[in-house]
Amino acid sequence: MSGAAAAGPLPHHDGSELHAPQQTALEAPVRLRLRIPEVWGSADRVWLRSVHDGEPRYDAAAGLGAADGWAWWEAETTMTNPVLRYRFLLESGGRYWNLNAQGLFSRDVSDYADFRLTTFPAAPPWLRRGTLYQVFPDRFARSSRASEHTPPDWAVPADWDSTPVQGSSEQTPLQFYGGDLHGVTEQLDHIQALGADIIYLTPFFPARSNHRYDAATFAAVDPLLGGDQALMELVEAAHARGLKVLGDLTANHSGAAHEWFQRALTVPESEEAGYYYFNADHSSYEAWYGVASLPKLNWGSDALRERFVLDDDSPVARWLRPPFNLDGWRIDVGNMTGRLGGTDLNQEVARLIAKRVREINPDAALLAEATNDAAPDFSGEHWHGAMTYSNFTRPLWAWLAGNDAAHVNFFGTPLPGPHRIDAEEFLATHQDLAAAFSWDVRRQNMNALNSHDTARAATVMIDGGQRLGAVLMFSLPGVPVMFAGDEFGLKGDNGESSRTPMPWTDPDRILRDLRGMYAALAALRRQQPALTGGGIRWLHAEGDALAFIRESADSAVLVVVARAAADVGLAAGLLSSSQLAGLAHPPVFSHGEIGVATEDVLIRAGGPAAAVWLLPGVRVPPP
Amino acid sequence: MSGAAAAGPLPHHDGSELHAPQQTALEAPVRLRLRIPEVWGSADRVWLRSVHDGEPRYDAAAGLGAADGWAWWEAETTMTNPVLRYRFLLESGGRYWNLNAQGLFSRDVSDYADFRLTTFPAAPPWLRRGTLYQVFPDRFARSSRASEHTPPDWAVPADWDSTPVQGSSEQTPLQFYGGDLHGVTEQLDHIQALGADIIYLTPFFPARSNHRYDAATFAAVDPLLGGDQALMELVEAAHARGLKVLGDLTANHSGAAHEWFQRALTVPESEEAGYYYFNADHSSYEAWYGVASLPKLNWGSDALRERFVLDDDSPVARWLRPPFNLDGWRIDVGNMTGRLGGTDLNQEVARLIAKRVREINPDAALLAEATNDAAPDFSGEHWHGAMTYSNFTRPLWAWLAGNDAAHVNFFGTPLPGPHRIDAEEFLATHQDLAAAFSWDVRRQNMNALNSHDTARAATVMIDGGQRLGAVLMFSLPGVPVMFAGDEFGLKGDNGESSRTPMPWTDPDRILRDLRGMYAALAALRRQQPALTGGGIRWLHAEGDALAFIRESADSAVLVVVARAAADVGLAAGLLSSSQLAGLAHPPVFSHGEIGVATEDVLIRAGGPAAAVWLLPGVRVPPP
Repeated sequence: MSGAAAAGPLPHHDGSELHAPQQTALEAPVRLRLRIPEVWGSADRVWLRSVHDGEPRYDAAAGLGAADGWAWWEAETTMTNPVLRYRFLLESGGRYWNLNAQGLFSRDVSDYADFRLTTFPAAPPWLRRGTLYQVFPDRFARSSRASEHTPPDWAVPADWDSTPVQGSSEQTPLQFYGGDLHGVTEQLDHIQALGADIIYLTPFFPARSNHRYDAATFAAVDPLLGGDQALMELVEAAHARGLKVLGDLTANHSGAAHEWFQRALTVPESEEAGYYYFNADHSSYEAWYGVASLPKLNWGSDALRERFVLDDDSPVARWLRPPFNLDGWRIDVGNMTGRLGGTDLNQEVARLIAKRVREINPDAALLAEATNDAAPDFSGEHWHGAMTYSNFTRPLWAWLAGNDAAHVNFFGTPLPGPHRIDAEEFLATHQDLAAAFSWDVRRQNMNALNSHDTARAATVMIDGGQRLGAVLMFSLPGVPVMFAGDEFGLKGDNGESSRTPMPWTDPDRILRDLRGMYAALAALRRQQPALTGGGIRWLHAEGDALAFIRESADSAVLVVVARAAADVGLAAGLLSSSQLAGLAHPPVFSHGEIGVATEDVLIRAGGPAAAVWLLPGVRVPPP
Repeated sequence: MSGAAAAGPLPHHDGSELHAPQQTALEAPVRLRLRIPEVWGSADRVWLRSVHDGEPRYDAAAGLGAADGWAWWEAETTMTNPVLRYRFLLESGGRYWNLNAQGLFSRDVSDYADFRLTTFPAAPPWLRRGTLYQVFPDRFARSSRASEHTPPDWAVPADWDSTPVQGSSEQTPLQFYGGDLHGVTEQLDHIQALGADIIYLTPFFPARSNHRYDAATFAAVDPLLGGDQALMELVEAAHARGLKVLGDLTANHSGAAHEWFQRALTVPESEEAGYYYFNADHSSYEAWYGVASLPKLNWGSDALRERFVLDDDSPVARWLRPPFNLDGWRIDVGNMTGRLGGTDLNQEVARLIAKRVREINPDAALLAEATNDAAPDFSGEHWHGAMTYSNFTRPLWAWLAGNDAAHVNFFGTPLPGPHRIDAEEFLATHQDLAAAFSWDVRRQNMNALNSHDTARAATVMIDGGQRLGAVLMFSLPGVPVMFAGDEFGLKGDNGESSRTPMPWTDPDRILRDLRGMYAALAALRRQQPALTGGGIRWLHAEGDALAFIRESADSAVLVVVARAAADVGLAAGLLSSSQLAGLAHPPVFSHGEIGVATEDVLIRAGGPAAAVWLLPGVRVPPP
């Protein structure tokens, strides 16, 4: 069907430093490189095709010579606009090809999947190098001080180890297990032992639910969690260990119990009434998905912009500053924020928040949730990365879907879980939904196997599939995310039922101890710069097996994952001879029955398996 | 490669009235239909997946029953936002599929190719029903009054029939053949006999080149063309015949000789200096592609907005009003207008111009040039359609490329002409670059075989290819465009050399008389509502042959085009039994050796050929 060729010995570019500058500025010249494996053929001519002020331009590339079986080409263009959209045009033997972020096409293509290079400030390096650990405070850990707190009026108290989590009942948002922030501080050893270095806390504001996405104020930490003091202590203790802490802020709505909304409700002429969308006679208001407890914020209100973002004491600002010193925010419902009917202020709000965050701390991180195709909203200008499921989690669930997958909630679709797809489709989906991000943003996107809003991988995937998924999560571009409980193989059919209290004291509730695996993968990622800074080149995607390599000039990491017995052929030209030689060394990580079959150049998996080899880097022709 | 299936007996939706409302409004409910051929299989469940305020939503479709071998489904959703992006999700036999404007996918897809329905005001019906005839005034016709004019100082006078057109020399913009608007008026019989009903004039303002894209004023018609009076007479005569007339306006730049620019240049503190982008010491300025004679307009200037658009006597306004009464504009360089470096006012300017045009005449047309992938700039909010080459002209050239094609300028690329692609690639390219337009905008996009900015089809295409291309141009969604001279088979290697004076008086310069063919196709299009209002369903795209059907409830038109001998199989389920029966009637248009091979249900072409059958429409199940 004349689709893209995306895996194999193919002409290659990605935005990594082998091929592109990692930072640039308006009007700066930029040099972009393409490499072509000799086994594919030689190009007669190569051009960089990019768009300047809306008009395509072609800059001829010059041959840089060959190294290790690859011919290199380089073209120079200019950063005319904040976002440079580009692809390569190759002429070879009377035909031509377009190479974009979806792969190689033997025809013209739309600009949709053009590579993107931007002039936006780079994200803090700790974010792209980090491993994220997600904590849902009510379910993570109860400190000794937690029992001092009386459960609130709305709560249905639950016993940590014996009360089953209700996945979808009236009690779902009300079951109160009573975890607190002191509990998180007490478990920093655990988190650190897993190799995680960024703690992402779902909301800590007082609310009328266990998830706290319905904040009653943004001005205080919930006393049930230990109050402001507990947050200060947690962040301080985390920082002392070199860990970062992110908060979770709802820019789309507040709770109905919020002090602003209460005033808005009772005083129609108040400033606060303008923060929300009331109807003419003040008898109803817009709410997230029509849920009355989550009134939607009206970003058309300049007063809200001041109060929420710009004021000294705004929610955006105050928690990033001493004495709290949070290291950044994850913005909830980023995709709906500022959007309602004929009004779309989404990018304007993102810009406003980002400017403020960077003003306070240029080293702070800013992520946003995007439950939809995220790329159009994530240019890199404001959000550093997306908490998105569409390019990684969803196709991964479908590729690794087990027998129980048919009962899980599949990302809000009405489908009975994912249907199983082959590796070709995994890769096509991944490329389709990752293509429109700049390389920079891709590295900060959150790659999760699951979250507090989804079923658990251990429920969705084939037996052992969580291990395979974890290998991909730690090795594909993006920030790996462990949701607390993943390391114990916890299960769940939907987001709510996945919010299981951690099995600290009841080892029977540990379904599978994966702590060692996560720690090994996190350590590998920390030790191998190619896993965070290297490019990505897909080698193989067929049926049961995927293989790719992350490459930099200094080193490379080869990753092979098979969901069942499979042979992964390493066709001539896929790897350089020195990389092939590197396969003689044992893998630096492996799971299951997998290894190099010496009679031929291939990797053979005897069943569900994964392996990671450390290989030599990529030699660029000498100047 | 897990690409889209786009031709064959497949689940089908397009935005046409069989499947979607043709007009809607914010907050209105909308019903959208999908039909599934029984031979494909039956769906267990179908949902409409659409995005509301940034969040995906799934509305279950209900089965409407079956008719003529198709099962119909319908879902209702709401126009939450001005643009509804949607696709269909089908579950069948434990698998699911996504159907978007690129076709049917067995995996998740990005939102890029979602169908689009909008609340924007519909374009004037005459535009989408019309056939456009493009006139380059200097080369179209010299009236008897033309000889009254002395050639201007910049001009190199050329003899109409004997001076060869210079395609790329210093003389290219200066060769002055002296066509005038009276000449156009005198040739209205010719234009009307071809079946064209919209005359599109490239610029008529005074300038210092034969193309006149370097306007010296927007306030007068070039006296060399007969002045204001000649335009009035032309439009009046055209209107008397039921023809429309469009002008061509450069919103991106003026000429350096323009009265505004001359004042700007000499008086740095003038209001006019703010209309352009001068450097700090007023010694240089931004210009289109760095061409000094085309200084770029600065739409950041409110004064320019007044002068160019909002004033009573603005260029946008005055020519659409009495006594001139132009029927609309084609905006030159639409893709670069308002874009420079860090500034992107493109959509804002488009909105401003569109609002003004509609205020003056709601029945006026507004097209814009887009030399790049046009869809992202053409939501339908402002421009009614695009003068774009990317989804039709370019892949058509590549599919029909002849031996001389290797010498033509291929849309500004550095390639030596198009390389030949197969029908599969034609369709994939077409779908890729057409998918992101709403159905409404697609119908107003200009489908051209060539223009004053490109080589001529007769040069590019295989012998007889222009006829095949013309059949596609008149039958695919969009407005067909004849560039004056096409009807005489004129040739040209690039846009400039294609601007051949019309061979009115020298029949030896008529290379091929295609007037009858164009007239027949234009008549067919006018007579068959399915060609302008019907949906489009691709039946076949393999190697040398393309087939599709335009369908409405009342009638359908089947189009088969083969560039060489080919069999087009009509697989079961592609057509209804009554449509198949309709093939017993002779085609309503045909060219070359082509017909129904009775021994099997197929259409056989003996060589380059095309045929059009009129068939019964589509039966929808009774309620």
